Amino acid sequence: VSPQMTRPALDLSRLLHPSGIAVVEASADPSTMAGKPLWALVHFGYAGAVYPIHPDLKELLGLTCYSSVAEVPQPCDVALVATEPGSVPGIIADCGGAGIPFAVILTAGFGESDEAGGDLQREIAAVASAHGVRVLGPNCQGLLNARDNVYAGFSGIFDNPGLRAGPAAMVMQSGFGFALAGAAEQAGMGFSYMVSVGNEADLTAVDVLEFVLEDREIELACVYLEGVSDGDRLRDLGKRALEIAKPVLVWKIGTTTAGQRAAASHTGRLTTRNDLYRAAFREGGFIEVTDLQEMIDIAQAFRMQRLPEGRSVGVVTVTGGAGVELADRCEDRGLSLAELSGSTVERLQRLHPGVLADPGNPLDVTSTSLREPGLYRGAIDLVLADHRIDQVIACNGGIQGEIAAPATLDLVAAAGPSPKPVLVCWTPRAGSSDDSLRTLEQHKIPCYATPARVATAAAALAGFAGKLARGPIDRSPTRAVDRRRLGPLPEEGVLCEHLSGQVLAAYGIPVARGHLLPGDEVVGLRESPLPFPVAVKVDSPDVAHATEAGLVRLGIRSLDELRRASLELLDAARALGLNVHGVLVQEMTEGIEMIAGTVVDACFGPAVVLGLGGIFTEAVGEVTHQFAPFDREAARRMCDDLRAGSILRGIRGGPPADLDALADALSRLSWLAVDHLDRLAEIDVNPLFVRQQGRGVLAADASVVVRRGAME
Amino acid sequence: VSPQMTRPALDLSRLLHPSGIAVVEASADPSTMAGKPLWALVHFGYAGAVYPIHPDLKELLGLTCYSSVAEVPQPCDVALVATEPGSVPGIIADCGGAGIPFAVILTAGFGESDEAGGDLQREIAAVASAHGVRVLGPNCQGLLNARDNVYAGFSGIFDNPGLRAGPAAMVMQSGFGFALAGAAEQAGMGFSYMVSVGNEADLTAVDVLEFVLEDREIELACVYLEGVSDGDRLRDLGKRALEIAKPVLVWKIGTTTAGQRAAASHTGRLTTRNDLYRAAFREGGFIEVTDLQEMIDIAQAFRMQRLPEGRSVGVVTVTGGAGVELADRCEDRGLSLAELSGSTVERLQRLHPGVLADPGNPLDVTSTSLREPGLYRGAIDLVLADHRIDQVIACNGGIQGEIAAPATLDLVAAAGPSPKPVLVCWTPRAGSSDDSLRTLEQHKIPCYATPARVATAAAALAGFAGKLARGPIDRSPTRAVDRRRLGPLPEEGVLCEHLSGQVLAAYGIPVARGHLLPGDEVVGLRESPLPFPVAVKVDSPDVAHATEAGLVRLGIRSLDELRRASLELLDAARALGLNVHGVLVQEMTEGIEMIAGTVVDACFGPAVVLGLGGIFTEAVGEVTHQFAPFDREAARRMCDDLRAGSILRGIRGGPPADLDALADALSRLSWLAVDHLDRLAEIDVNPLFVRQQGRGVLAADASVVVRRGAME
Repeated sequence: VSPQMTRPALDLSRLLHPSGIAVVEASADPSTMAGKPLWALVHFGYAGAVYPIHPDLKELLGLTCYSSVAEVPQPCDVALVATEPGSVPGIIADCGGAGIPFAVILTAGFGESDEAGGDLQREIAAVASAHGVRVLGPNCQGLLNARDNVYAGFSGIFDNPGLRAGPAAMVMQSGFGFALAGAAEQAGMGFSYMVSVGNEADLTAVDVLEFVLEDREIELACVYLEGVSDGDRLRDLGKRALEIAKPVLVWKIGTTTAGQRAAASHTGRLTTRNDLYRAAFREGGFIEVTDLQEMIDIAQAFRMQRLPEGRSVGVVTVTGGAGVELADRCEDRGLSLAELSGSTVERLQRLHPGVLADPGNPLDVTSTSLREPGLYRGAIDLVLADHRIDQVIACNGGIQGEIAAPATLDLVAAAGPSPKPVLVCWTPRAGSSDDSLRTLEQHKIPCYATPARVATAAAALAGFAGKLARGPIDRSPTRAVDRRRLGPLPEEGVLCEHLSGQVLAAYGIPVARGHLLPGDEVVGLRESPLPFPVAVKVDSPDVAHATEAGLVRLGIRSLDELRRASLELLDAARALGLNVHGVLVQEMTEGIEMIAGTVVDACFGPAVVLGLGGIFTEAVGEVTHQFAPFDREAARRMCDDLRAGSILRGIRGGPPADLDALADALSRLSWLAVDHLDRLAEIDVNPLFVRQQGRGVLAADASVVVRRGAME
Repeated sequence: VSPQMTRPALDLSRLLHPSGIAVVEASADPSTMAGKPLWALVHFGYAGAVYPIHPDLKELLGLTCYSSVAEVPQPCDVALVATEPGSVPGIIADCGGAGIPFAVILTAGFGESDEAGGDLQREIAAVASAHGVRVLGPNCQGLLNARDNVYAGFSGIFDNPGLRAGPAAMVMQSGFGFALAGAAEQAGMGFSYMVSVGNEADLTAVDVLEFVLEDREIELACVYLEGVSDGDRLRDLGKRALEIAKPVLVWKIGTTTAGQRAAASHTGRLTTRNDLYRAAFREGGFIEVTDLQEMIDIAQAFRMQRLPEGRSVGVVTVTGGAGVELADRCEDRGLSLAELSGSTVERLQRLHPGVLADPGNPLDVTSTSLREPGLYRGAIDLVLADHRIDQVIACNGGIQGEIAAPATLDLVAAAGPSPKPVLVCWTPRAGSSDDSLRTLEQHKIPCYATPARVATAAAALAGFAGKLARGPIDRSPTRAVDRRRLGPLPEEGVLCEHLSGQVLAAYGIPVARGHLLPGDEVVGLRESPLPFPVAVKVDSPDVAHATEAGLVRLGIRSLDELRRASLELLDAARALGLNVHGVLVQEMTEGIEMIAGTVVDACFGPAVVLGLGGIFTEAVGEVTHQFAPFDREAARRMCDDLRAGSILRGIRGGPPADLDALADALSRLSWLAVDHLDRLAEIDVNPLFVRQQGRGVLAADASVVVRRGAME
């Protein structure tokens, strides 16, 4: 797929850069929903035409009024609508008639309020589609184009003329996003566009993001996200962001709802939707943020338009304590302070044998030595030039006054010719070094007050660069396995373990050998169906995991024991009133217990989940997701994503586990989920034993949930 | 111990509130180390006497000069010293002669630079002690008392007159602390004292903290900490902080491997395991912070002088999106949004049946409804009054202008009579609602720009309140076990597993039954010394953990197998050139594998460590420490501290583990470590099997390291 192919077909130019705007139910009172934008459009420098719509008035704020949208002359690209909900569909139809391509519906009282509102919202979508009008909202707070002073909305920020425009765009689903964007603007971040999409009756946050990301002057987009309805579109956007190397900072809310907690309390159901968002963010050009300062700080770093090649950082500091703190905060964020190369060490020693007698990373040049001409610049130059160093953090501590200005010039001079990012950690007192701060800003060298903040920004650069280097995931992988029929499945419900194992086996996923022993054959059993030791489990469609129900006996070593255990289990199951097929006699195995499974998400479709299995699934609470289908390489990435993946790579004298076999099984699982999407609601293998390298994997307890669907 | 008993004996009043200050090697040039404080003391409103010391000049900045400290008249409480290092001991002796009780040594070039500097630093300590002078520094940046305009130091902040004084104090080991304190002051935090302790030749950060914490007007202390040399003193301070309910915000640097490496090269301080600092912080009145904003935000919350009773938060918001975001951030930080009680729900519905038809937590009153008189105040009142709610976060979103002022008054009126904390999340644009922000400040209601920040502050309040409620740990617990002799131990080194087990057994810690089989008895073995199944391990003083070395066979079930495995292991061990005592035949057991052990830290003394065992120790990477000795209750707290502790409490259908037995074993381990502190360098039990409730624990692999020490 060529980059051109994925560019958005949707042209929102006239929405974001309207030549004329009609304001429906306009008012001269700037405290009303429609009065506020009218006031701002008239007074804050908008160069296009403004058409107040009012049933009675002839004139408002010196502008000619029109009695309805239908009468508005051209050019008019946007109708801003703040009337009562019931009138909105008619106004949208009028827009179509008048050739107004976009309506921005500020009015609330639609899908977010009640059922009738939901109906009205669907009507809006239908009318808009029928009349060729694209709709932003309803229940949105409008849009603001700070480049062209398009103030087409009503939140607090619309009271302020002369907002800083800049190379960022912000798209938000919740109105709270405007409060955040406003605070970010005030803190120095320049937004060309801020767009609130509200209920997304028509245009979605992803639509708007896709469009603004292609804007030449936009270097970075931010999105305040509640959720999307089409996970594939979000993944497309993430892929596109990587293709054009523009990061999308995503502030996702709703990451820890009570419902997710409830789901997590049941082992094996750790697959909450938010994990899937995380998976989408991880594979694409997204950077997740959870706070305003973080968003601003990361955006500042990307202003440099430089990316590091790897995760190593060189720290040059004027105070040793800050060097330690920077080392901590970098390591916290997965960055490393690489050892300087031998030649850099030698050159530093030659640069100043006194101060730099034993140069390391962090490199402390001391604040008093800042008075030595050439020292600071030389030190930064040398560290930047070291091939082991991917980016540099220069810490000026709390210096200010006469010592600050030359240090800043040194810093800028050193940073200038390098292709590597240079970030500054500096906390001068306001007013003490404003010229220096301006100098840094002019050179787009970002400056942060604390080690934590600068390290967060540096890590975001490294993370994005890593994604660019790795490239987007292959979304059309080669098949790991041909499509297979699954044989007859019950209409719906949880399959018993025996049948669940057959589903996995059909896709070549190794399953522990098992023999289903009907209940009435137990007493007369003359020989174990499998060599000892064996496990015995109740096989019942009513029990997803026999272990959790306590209906399992492990390590059985004699026929007597087998008979006794089987009878006990059958009794226990009958006492619980379960439907029982019999007992499953299963080979015992060992290895590292993992959990692997599939989920089918309404928004993202099928995905595979992987985590530590057995009792550790919940206690460790770490799982990773990958969208299906995927190949072995992507499966290996899943293992790398898990912190617990170190167990698989072999620790405490243990041999490495069979990662190849695990990757193969995961990839097969992904194809199984995709091929039988209409029937397989969920698969849960826990434990999946991962044995030593070369010995493969073995599913020891599987549970498949089928749902009504097309016939096989 | 009565609270009075632990109050510091050290009186630093004259250091922090000096009646007169001598400035050694004074200069009229404010850019020099001694010239800067002289300038500031003369010009920034210090009311005490200032005595410039200069060998030649008669007068400096209009003040009479003295040729040496010995000539300075009274009152003089502090000598500020910035001369070359070699002259410092003599000046300190002169201070003693002149009756000057404190010397503040700004000069660098002591312990932090080289061996000669270290000797000179020890000389300073000796001279100070001999002459009755207490010393701050050397290599410190001085102290600043903003109440009395005592500018006795030289970092950037000393250039600024009229610093805000306030109920906080900051003590710092690294000069970078001044940069941070300065930035915090500028952001609205008032410090009465900022003290840099430098190399701590005499006075330490803990000395200063202990003193300032008792100051009536100090409500909270901050410390920028590299490390302490006396862990017990730090623990005492933490205990005292809880007794007088004043939090100590601790910003500890060197918390990661990279940071510790950097710290080791930057300071001569002991790099104690950070886990032990964490343990000290956790048990005492400390709150750990890692960034400036966090420090400021938490300090703001404590200004209210209100603490919540539990961890539940009520959120009242004017924007639904912010409510979700607040719920996320609260949950991230271990706070819960409790369900409102039925009566609160009813009252809210009665308050406004339209807006509050279905009230929940977060409670969205919507920004347009802020215009409804009484609604906002009533909603906050009711949520605050709910017994399920411990504190309230009120979110004003981005509202500003005319709507903001009455909302703020409502908020203040509701918060006023309640004993519960009320925190505000609000991002008005600068200049748009300054009166309202001032109103909040006057009422000490803290206001934060984002959900993450307000949640961090609320969590800090809840955490501190929880510690107050739980009280300090019992540092003189009842003995779990009498002091026992350990029998003959080798001079030093790692004990073989057999002997290690005996050490544990002596203190009543259950050890897996084992039989040491000499190598020459293996071939002729006629009977297993223990019932099958058994494990066999090489028993060698050269192998701390046989498992890690691969010298173990598990699940042996026959005499043949036992002989074969033993011979193979002995061959393997001989091939590795190990000293071998024989093979240890051990009973097999099962249960949850934990790691338990002891360490002896130069700074904190003996401590016990607990974590998940086996392959999970490293992969999960979560351990907790407790200082020895301790009782079972403190041991139970260790289990609670572990996230993986949920495994012990029983998950995935598993029965709960024997927590009582585990707590007992940990407490015994703590006594073992304390009683034999002079010989036992380290104990490592991995795995310690924790079996089902009632079945106890069993140490299956232990390794004890002894060192030279007093004879038993």
